[in-house]
Amino acid sequence: MSARTRSLTHTDPAEVSLQDALDAVSDPVRRTILRELAAGPDWARACGTFDLPVTKATRSHHFAVLRAAGLVEQRDEGPRRLNRLRRPEFDQRFPGLLDLILADPTAD
Amino acid sequence: MSARTRSLTHTDPAEVSLQDALDAVSDPVRRTILRELAAGPDWARACGTFDLPVTKATRSHHFAVLRAAGLVEQRDEGPRRLNRLRRPEFDQRFPGLLDLILADPTAD
Repeated sequence: MSARTRSLTHTDPAEVSLQDALDAVSDPVRRTILRELAAGPDWARACGTFDLPVTKATRSHHFAVLRAAGLVEQRDEGPRRLNRLRRPEFDQRFPGLLDLILADPTAD
Repeated sequence: MSARTRSLTHTDPAEVSLQDALDAVSDPVRRTILRELAAGPDWARACGTFDLPVTKATRSHHFAVLRAAGLVEQRDEGPRRLNRLRRPEFDQRFPGLLDLILADPTAD
């Protein structure tokens, strides 16, 4: 196991607090990531493919927050870090919250 | 109109952004206020009756944030500032969000 893979700490959505879930979705950059993930199939998007107005370090931080909130699952495939939105599991823990976030972005 | 009453700026829930709504409910003290309001009838609770671990100034700030997010309506009645949870209007704007917040506080 590489150091890179070891750094991928995930949280089961069932273990996520309401506070952590709200904190995770309260950031507009993270909502953009969630909406783009929801628009495509699982594991289709690598982290680097998101057009975000932030530094690489900040981007990594946002993905770490999303993992810790049970919203995103990641796995490394060669040089790419692929993503899956954990929609069914998160919906079960916090019904309706992702639907609100994923609605028309003009809602922001 | 007294200076005190003039200071009561409200926002129609229909005009509230998702960002402002999420920011408002992301604070645990504000969630406590919302849950206590939901537990009783409209206009039954004055601001001073909430047992909150904050200063008076911070308490006023929390209520101002809740008003600005379309979550709480207030009116002065003599020396008391009474509160109403704007549940139907807020539910219409952000379906399901208040239900999540008002659920069992152990969800925090």
